[in-house]
Amino acid sequence: MSSILGKYDVNPLLEEERCKATFNIEKLTYFLEGDQEKTERRRELEKKFYEDEFPNDLIKVPVDYLSHSEIYTEALIKAARIYFEAFNLEDPREVLGIADAYHYEASPLLLHFAMFIPALMGHCNDEQQARWLPDAIELKIIGTYAQTELGHGSYLKGLQTEAIYNDKEKTFTLNSPTLESIKWWPGGLGKTANHAIVQAQLFVDGVHRGLHPFMVQIRDLETHKPLPGIEVGELGPKLGFKAADNGYLKLSSVVIPKSNMLMKNAYIDDNGRYQAKKATDKLNLGTMLFVRVLIIDMMSFNISKAVTIATRYSAVRKQGINPDSKNGVTSELKIIDYAAQRYKLIPCIALSHACKAVFISLMSAFKDVNESMSKRSDYRSIPLLHAMSSGLKALTTDLGASAVEICRRACGGNGFLLASGLPRIFGNTVAACTYEGENTILYLQTARYLYKTVRLVSNHGSSSMESNTKVTLNLKERETSQSIGYLYRVTRPDIGNLGKREGKIVSDVDGLLRLFSASAYYHCHFAFDQVDCRMRVQGQSFEKAWIECQVDLIKAAKSHLIYYMMIKYWEWVSSGEKYDLNISQVLKRLAYFYFGFIINENKGDFLAVGLDLTSIEQIQDELSTLMVELRNDMIPLVDAFDLHDMVLMSAIGCKDGNVYDRLFNLAKKAPLNQVDPNPSFIKYIKDLTKSKL
Amino acid sequence: MSSILGKYDVNPLLEEERCKATFNIEKLTYFLEGDQEKTERRRELEKKFYEDEFPNDLIKVPVDYLSHSEIYTEALIKAARIYFEAFNLEDPREVLGIADAYHYEASPLLLHFAMFIPALMGHCNDEQQARWLPDAIELKIIGTYAQTELGHGSYLKGLQTEAIYNDKEKTFTLNSPTLESIKWWPGGLGKTANHAIVQAQLFVDGVHRGLHPFMVQIRDLETHKPLPGIEVGELGPKLGFKAADNGYLKLSSVVIPKSNMLMKNAYIDDNGRYQAKKATDKLNLGTMLFVRVLIIDMMSFNISKAVTIATRYSAVRKQGINPDSKNGVTSELKIIDYAAQRYKLIPCIALSHACKAVFISLMSAFKDVNESMSKRSDYRSIPLLHAMSSGLKALTTDLGASAVEICRRACGGNGFLLASGLPRIFGNTVAACTYEGENTILYLQTARYLYKTVRLVSNHGSSSMESNTKVTLNLKERETSQSIGYLYRVTRPDIGNLGKREGKIVSDVDGLLRLFSASAYYHCHFAFDQVDCRMRVQGQSFEKAWIECQVDLIKAAKSHLIYYMMIKYWEWVSSGEKYDLNISQVLKRLAYFYFGFIINENKGDFLAVGLDLTSIEQIQDELSTLMVELRNDMIPLVDAFDLHDMVLMSAIGCKDGNVYDRLFNLAKKAPLNQVDPNPSFIKYIKDLTKSKL
Ligand SMILES: Cc1cc2nc3c(=O)[nH]c(=O)nc-3n(C[C@H](O)[C@H](O)[C@H](O)COP(=O)(O)OP(=O)(O)OC[C@H]3O[C@@H](n4cnc5c(N)ncnc54)[C@H](O)[C@@H]3O)c2cc1C
Ligand SMILES: Cc1cc2nc3c(=O)[nH]c(=O)nc-3n(C[C@H](O)[C@H](O)[C@H](O)COP(=O)(O)OP(=O)(O)OC[C@H]3O[C@@H](n4cnc5c(N)ncnc54)[C@H](O)[C@@H]3O)c2cc1C
Repeated sequence: MSSILGKYDVNPLLEEERCKATFNIEKLTYFLEGDQEKTERRRELEKKFYEDEFPNDLIKVPVDYLSHSEIYTEALIKAARIYFEAFNLEDPREVLGIADAYHYEASPLLLHFAMFIPALMGHCNDEQQARWLPDAIELKIIGTYAQTELGHGSYLKGLQTEAIYNDKEKTFTLNSPTLESIKWWPGGLGKTANHAIVQAQLFVDGVHRGLHPFMVQIRDLETHKPLPGIEVGELGPKLGFKAADNGYLKLSSVVIPKSNMLMKNAYIDDNGRYQAKKATDKLNLGTMLFVRVLIIDMMSFNISKAVTIATRYSAVRKQGINPDSKNGVTSELKIIDYAAQRYKLIPCIALSHACKAVFISLMSAFKDVNESMSKRSDYRSIPLLHAMSSGLKALTTDLGASAVEICRRACGGNGFLLASGLPRIFGNTVAACTYEGENTILYLQTARYLYKTVRLVSNHGSSSMESNTKVTLNLKERETSQSIGYLYRVTRPDIGNLGKREGKIVSDVDGLLRLFSASAYYHCHFAFDQVDCRMRVQGQSFEKAWIECQVDLIKAAKSHLIYYMMIKYWEWVSSGEKYDLNISQVLKRLAYFYFGFIINENKGDFLAVGLDLTSIEQIQDELSTLMVELRNDMIPLVDAFDLHDMVLMSAIGCKDGNVYDRLFNLAKKAPLNQVDPNPSFIKYIKDLTKSKL
Repeated sequence: MSSILGKYDVNPLLEEERCKATFNIEKLTYFLEGDQEKTERRRELEKKFYEDEFPNDLIKVPVDYLSHSEIYTEALIKAARIYFEAFNLEDPREVLGIADAYHYEASPLLLHFAMFIPALMGHCNDEQQARWLPDAIELKIIGTYAQTELGHGSYLKGLQTEAIYNDKEKTFTLNSPTLESIKWWPGGLGKTANHAIVQAQLFVDGVHRGLHPFMVQIRDLETHKPLPGIEVGELGPKLGFKAADNGYLKLSSVVIPKSNMLMKNAYIDDNGRYQAKKATDKLNLGTMLFVRVLIIDMMSFNISKAVTIATRYSAVRKQGINPDSKNGVTSELKIIDYAAQRYKLIPCIALSHACKAVFISLMSAFKDVNESMSKRSDYRSIPLLHAMSSGLKALTTDLGASAVEICRRACGGNGFLLASGLPRIFGNTVAACTYEGENTILYLQTARYLYKTVRLVSNHGSSSMESNTKVTLNLKERETSQSIGYLYRVTRPDIGNLGKREGKIVSDVDGLLRLFSASAYYHCHFAFDQVDCRMRVQGQSFEKAWIECQVDLIKAAKSHLIYYMMIKYWEWVSSGEKYDLNISQVLKRLAYFYFGFIINENKGDFLAVGLDLTSIEQIQDELSTLMVELRNDMIPLVDAFDLHDMVLMSAIGCKDGNVYDRLFNLAKKAPLNQVDPNPSFIKYIKDLTKSKL
């Protein structure tokens, strides 16, 4: 496959950067990935996929050069390859990590593996699992998860697909009763899936029983043609996830057996009566929560891709006079040497680390919670973890999408070419701001959790809160969330004297975290008081007041989440101390920079809680110094992400730094260059101008 | 052509919004466009293009559904149509406005009309104009403007294409001596142009004479094949401007006659000696300046498109429970009724107005300057106008791109579909952050002008400054820029008592403008002092210090530009007073909102100059109230942009508000839905799973 990108000499400009590292790059890779073994195993797997030739023409040009239909085909070829390769491995799941990097525009089988199979495991009883899982794993049945409809996404109660139970026939009849009720968005639904788990409003004996999942076969297993009553298709081209064939599904009196209702949490008994188990919601919450945590890791990954491309490009792109030119000979400056350019790139490197840190911490919390659930049927920690992971998904995807776009623009004109890889990374990153919970709505969920908890504590006093069942704050919870306690205090955390000890503000991390908590405290309590005030003074209902205060509430949630991210980021950075001193030093510098950067870019949030302007100006000065100190570690830092050229798939981001040869040679492969002169030009312009004149 | 979007009933949800207008929508359209006559003429022209059937299949589906090569073809068909239509009009230029709206991904002839022909007029002597202009107008020759190279864009002195004069043969030999020197990016160069104006470093008698424009024929006029020595092609798919066939050009010993050097400003005389006229730079500046001013108008247009789509969608999209539901029946809320959603959309409407206002003011300044130049050979106002238009191009494109992206995300999942039109508008808007001067560099140009002027004044005292030749500030200039004088003062403008008169802060516009000027003053002087300090204390050269202080300098330029934009915006809004009282009222509300919004979103910039937190909190309160007051005018405000459905080309933004039918029916036309089952699926997944299992 390497023929796509070509082979070239290493650009000495990049080599010279690598020599400047203040730390061992390889060692940082291990630290980022967990340990050396993981890195080596990943590299082995990458070899399997990236270093052989593909027998298909589509795989010989960048995916960005293909049409929408070809992109789908390219992805199918790869999906098949990955699938069969997986069975040659001892642990087939190993291949999943590679699969994401290998599919540039998501896989048509993504939903099958990431939602359909997990949903089978989560929603089926044992009998059903035995019936469907083996076929699903062997791809005899390919499934998707159909929830969103044309008319409703965020508001699940508004979903309209109906499943009516027919007691006589022991069947359900499924219908899309309105235009708005057509299923709309499920990945793989358009052309790939032959089954779908359909979320529908269940009616038993005329009684509405709420949303439940049903297994619906949508295509014939032999012919792959849609079955009677099924209208199915693809949604059309998108900004990203281009190979995911997100689709629509219209159901017209589709009859399925009673046994096709997924029965782990509810079922129809032999007497035709509806039976539901408890704790259903919380179990479903668990899956959603998990996916959101994975998205945070994906953000770290996507940001690292974009900033690797942009930083490498910046180290070989020269533009403008070097003011330090010597002996009367003017030399040119690498754009990485402009302060403005470093101020764009360095925060992105830091953000990738911060997302990684948040991911690691949530993942471990998730494991704890899962253990409590399965071992002790203790569900009490879920609401907190759910609130935090929802909000952090929103925060990291917002910051991630901006970071990728900053990297893209930092490559000037060439960042606008799809061949740079950056528009593709942007499209696939920004998608996460919308799917798995639209970000605005997620921030508001976090805010609601914070509001309820804070009001509970202030109403009951912190001692009596254990008693409340709705929002239970037990010790365990407070521990997983040492960060939430500050909100219960009666007064705002005091920011104290910043940096007065060592003279530097950005390295006084205790002080900075105090500052972040003070800001979060202020924004949260301000917003919560606004809500209460509207209820008390204007007599609005809680829901009405909530809607009117959304702007403040979102700001509140963000401030809290940033504070939380900073805590976790710093914990992770600190863990490097034991590992390696040089690495620890550069990670700390980067973190100091990011702390200072966040303050400088949002200075109002901190001036509001008593930080003075002189301190802000001092921070700006410290940022300037840090940008100089970090200058020579920028390439080493992105190299340490250890991203294979085939993962980046970028004409300007390859490890050899050979930007111009590759750009030029890839341009020659572009679709319009395959015929010259262009027949349409001859037909529509040339011949017509001739005839007319 | 309307068959692309289909015909549907009007959605009553949108009808009900239109009835709520507090002003006459049609009248606001006239005000926005200049006068009633202009509106009517535009509508007549739109009829010509939009209301007939096209004889080509490509034009029957949204352009977003086509492959890169098809998009080029679609644009050629339209370009030909526009071109021939133009000659049926009394004033062919009338069609240009329509052309931009009509081409969804720019036209392959864009550069021919927007740069090549203007450059012929600007750089050719009379004889050359007579030789090339008529053919160019009749499309016998199709040209582009080739400046940027693979290795250099922003830094023009770095361009490497060579033109060596051969005195014996009276010819020039043009060469691309290095890989980096290959021309890279010119629009229309890839497949369309047969001529290019090539910027090259001129060498006469071994002496380097700097960059000059040359006319180079690149393709045969009959066969349209590249001529010997010419390697030409297209750059490949891009994030936007997809039909503009931006291309590359490699010149290998291409010989052109002496008379092909464009000779208005410099030429080789009969004795083979180089001769240059004066004031060249300034004239070229004039053209660049003009293009930048036009971009600001395009921003207003693009933002109005995005916000029209998102606001209409928000008025028909329902999601969530209406807290005011009555009689126990829960009704659903339109998303426009969420405060968070209004806070996204309203600023975008205002920004479109603000850009329009800036455009109008710069356009009139541009005309004044042009008159001074041509009538009195007075070039003194150019530097200021150049600095301001460069910076305002950067500011409005940055704000414009964010606004479009906010609108896109505000449409949830459907904003991710190309059929929504929003990803297309984003790609074509964000391009302007890079072309015609990359934004970071433009901000720095503005900062440099401000720095030089301010330092000049403070060094010489304002009385003696006329004497300086490099940056001349005459009275005329100070008049066109009443806004720059505040920077010359010794002390920062006093923000005084905000809103103390009427009790409301956001409507105390004089006070707010004082506040904006105080903030700009602070940020400018802070940055300038940093530069000086580095020179004085650290002994850095000016250029070195400048590079190190870029972050502060960019912030300085932005603060100044925002202040300027607010002045112009308010002048424009105030001009509505004489026109119509109801319109004036809504425009003012919107402006108050935007002022408050800018302060709230950048509160640190204002806290830094003495605004207190209580005032910020009061502003937030006022914003809340204004969002309620503006609620019912949101649809009327976007309707007043009067954008034809074919201009929006959006499944979710049409005037009839029929979102779901159109989305569903357009999806059916999507490329992947033209065959079912998908042959690639059968080949790569179905058959292989069969054989394997
Ligand atoms: C790439 C991609 C893949 C997807 N894959 C799947 C899939 O596999 N299966 C599936 O079922 N779905 C899928 N979806 C759908 C996705 O889950 C929804 O798009 C998402 O949940 C957002 O819902 P929506 O589109 O209805 O947005 P809406 O909720 O309609 O949002 C529109 C606007 O309204 C605002 N808004 C809505 N409610 C509120 C509120 N209460 N308060 C304030 N503002 C509000 C939002 O903030 C937003 O600005 C996918 C979507 C995308 C983009
Ligand atoms: C859609 C499109 C159409 C175009 N059409 C044409 C055309 O028709 N004809 C033509 O000749 N060209 C065209 N161009 C090229 C365009 O003019 C250049 O891309 C643009 O001028 C930016 O230059 P660059 O690409 O060299 O960016 P660079 O200057 O290389 O920018 C890369 C990064 O370096 C930074 N940087 C560079 N210099 C400095 C500095 N001094 N200080 C701080 N930071 C710096 C920038 O801020 C940016 O972050 C087009 C480009 C696009 C995207």
